[in-house]
Amino acid sequence: MQHVVIIGGGFGGLAAAKALARAPVRVTIIDRTNHHLFQPLLYQVATAGLSPGQIAAPIRSVFKRQKNVEVVLGEVAAIDMDAKVVRIAEPVEKRVIFDRLIIAVGACTSYFGHDDWAPYATGLKSLDEAVEIRRRVLVAFEQAERIEDPVERARLCTFVVIGGGPTGVELAGALIELSRHALRDEFRHIDPADATVILVEGGPRILSSFSEKLSACAQRQLEDLGVQVQLGEQVSAVDAAGVHLGARLIATETVMWAAGVRANPLVAQLGAPIDRGGRVAVETDCSLPGHPDVFVIGDAAAFKTDDGLLPGVSPVAMQQGRLVAANIMREMRGKPRAPFQYRDKGSMATIGRRRAIAQTRRMSLSGLPAWLAWLAVHLVYLVGHRNRLSVLFDWFWSFVTFNRGVRLITGGRMIAGAPAVPELPVQPALEANASPVESRASAR
Amino acid sequence: MQHVVIIGGGFGGLAAAKALARAPVRVTIIDRTNHHLFQPLLYQVATAGLSPGQIAAPIRSVFKRQKNVEVVLGEVAAIDMDAKVVRIAEPVEKRVIFDRLIIAVGACTSYFGHDDWAPYATGLKSLDEAVEIRRRVLVAFEQAERIEDPVERARLCTFVVIGGGPTGVELAGALIELSRHALRDEFRHIDPADATVILVEGGPRILSSFSEKLSACAQRQLEDLGVQVQLGEQVSAVDAAGVHLGARLIATETVMWAAGVRANPLVAQLGAPIDRGGRVAVETDCSLPGHPDVFVIGDAAAFKTDDGLLPGVSPVAMQQGRLVAANIMREMRGKPRAPFQYRDKGSMATIGRRRAIAQTRRMSLSGLPAWLAWLAVHLVYLVGHRNRLSVLFDWFWSFVTFNRGVRLITGGRMIAGAPAVPELPVQPALEANASPVESRASAR
Repeated sequence: MQHVVIIGGGFGGLAAAKALARAPVRVTIIDRTNHHLFQPLLYQVATAGLSPGQIAAPIRSVFKRQKNVEVVLGEVAAIDMDAKVVRIAEPVEKRVIFDRLIIAVGACTSYFGHDDWAPYATGLKSLDEAVEIRRRVLVAFEQAERIEDPVERARLCTFVVIGGGPTGVELAGALIELSRHALRDEFRHIDPADATVILVEGGPRILSSFSEKLSACAQRQLEDLGVQVQLGEQVSAVDAAGVHLGARLIATETVMWAAGVRANPLVAQLGAPIDRGGRVAVETDCSLPGHPDVFVIGDAAAFKTDDGLLPGVSPVAMQQGRLVAANIMREMRGKPRAPFQYRDKGSMATIGRRRAIAQTRRMSLSGLPAWLAWLAVHLVYLVGHRNRLSVLFDWFWSFVTFNRGVRLITGGRMIAGAPAVPELPVQPALEANASPVESRASAR
Repeated sequence: MQHVVIIGGGFGGLAAAKALARAPVRVTIIDRTNHHLFQPLLYQVATAGLSPGQIAAPIRSVFKRQKNVEVVLGEVAAIDMDAKVVRIAEPVEKRVIFDRLIIAVGACTSYFGHDDWAPYATGLKSLDEAVEIRRRVLVAFEQAERIEDPVERARLCTFVVIGGGPTGVELAGALIELSRHALRDEFRHIDPADATVILVEGGPRILSSFSEKLSACAQRQLEDLGVQVQLGEQVSAVDAAGVHLGARLIATETVMWAAGVRANPLVAQLGAPIDRGGRVAVETDCSLPGHPDVFVIGDAAAFKTDDGLLPGVSPVAMQQGRLVAANIMREMRGKPRAPFQYRDKGSMATIGRRRAIAQTRRMSLSGLPAWLAWLAVHLVYLVGHRNRLSVLFDWFWSFVTFNRGVRLITGGRMIAGAPAVPELPVQPALEANASPVESRASAR
């Protein structure tokens, strides 16, 4: 029986494996972690709205009843395309021989060559990063409560989000709501509502993938909430003092990085040329040029269309996963492969309570209707019925009470020193399972 | 206004602070973490049934509306009883002057002088330890799935719980249910239901604080589930090979330690003699001998009664907290202090689905009625309405589906090597906030 090996249990890998449910093939999914992560809701873990367990589902659990799937927890060290072998280095050297290989390894945070900024500007691509942001934000308020110097207090209560894409916008909106509502009345020396949340974007507008009108509308909604949006600002450095914008310094202890991602480094080992974002160009059937049995999908692939490269969002990854699976089955029946065609069902970004924007080819939504659409789409795509109900419950609870339930300071140091250089540096941005989405979901 | 300082936001500290709600005093609660931890449900976090956020509530949140309470996140370094000063070392040196001091620092895991066992036998007194147990258990199954040697596979699928008190019993029961039900059908090379769970107890019976009849009943219920109960076995060593019982070795990778606790080391600095369990003897009003304004309550205190020392359980801590608060208020009205009298409302331990035991002075329960009583009591005492509803929901879901929702492998190494010595050692057992309960709750 043919053996289809899938590297990565993100949106793309999962979609491919599910589409192969009735195919006469063996499927092996290799992932560095034991869970599929619903990345579009990571910002809610980072802002204490949801628990890590609510947005992650064990991959084994997902394929419990699909008996042709085997799940392997492991880190891929190398791929030998001629011998058709994937080599897993950990925990024990293991070689997996494939007939077809689907590389769905996703993207990780990119500091555009400034990896020295990483300890100060936490990315948001993994659960560990989300919990680290949660810890830093809560610890900053705790420190501010203890310190009497008003300048230092203001610095501690300043939060800077770099990057005005969906991740940055959602994070900034959730942060301001956390400080304005959830923490209200809990401190005796500071008022968390006085906190400053700054969203720094290098381009002329936020959410540039949306129409100018929606983008302006989103900015207005953010500013209504209290977020300071700073456009056209290039970050020149991030260090212990804060964020440097040329000669200007935003003094802060807590910086979040939502400005860029690049494909998982594994892609660079394929021997094919990669682009500036670390992605490899693929054929119209998502196969690697010269290797018809190796496919690259999702954030790791640079798929050219007449309108340019497809964006790194989950619907692209899922649709590519299904297309590749369908092509594998077609070939087994002696039929030719079909090319990939992206069906863009639109995209959306949430800003806060009852605030969001959504855009399809035919219409634009903003405010409450967009927010309700966002809610529905995210619940539908969240893997696992229990997670869905549990998230729905927490959202309902937060909406009614304005509370955030998961305000735990865990991991790292429980107590903040003055971590000029944090003792627990953010782990290097390298995740084999990053799922292909830039914190943005679209209707399928 | 008098300043009452409480060290520790566990059951005792919280009860004292709440009882002072209408007293004309300032209250400061100092805790090393930002959350009150509901320790009796830690074993459910360790076995992937609940998320950490569901059994922890931010202390600030608890006292949001009680304006005479200030919460300080900090680690107490020293107490100067003559100057009436508590010195906090982190994050910045801070001195807190008190009129009355309530020391409610709880207990931490004790290896009875064998601290070298700690890296191999994880305790269960903090969220970090619970998440570490969860990680080790799940990783052991992942490793077993990958390894073909049947001897090594059996070793990986053997889980040993040391200590037959309520914590050990609850952990063993939950572990066997995890392997028998929640993980069913998810692996392709092993059957998790074949896993061996061994409960090792040094004494002649488990749950020795209960009647002999109930204790035998609990053992029968555990054995029905599939747990191997080994009584009268003294652990001579725990190391990379497993658990040594004299000459006999139980080969295992995963050992959990529920055999003993001792009072927080801070208590030893008080200058008063401490007993074998690290506790300090207190007067009948819980004050420290010679220091009428300093009180020690809960697990940190050795309170003598005609029936011996009071046990380290949450009802003792809560009742002592309320008594001390009441005495402070009585004194302010010129009245004499009242002595502490423990009202034992009974105790209970859960074993698994529909299995538990409960005992009050008047009656004994086991099986389903005891289990329902256990459910009710734990929900009533869980702090925070949202947590209560959310836990109820997850319990209901697990009960109906046999599933465990929170099966995340996070922290430490994602992938198991063969950690002869784990890379991320369990943190030294030292918690300023350990709340006074030995994973056992009693009806008030």
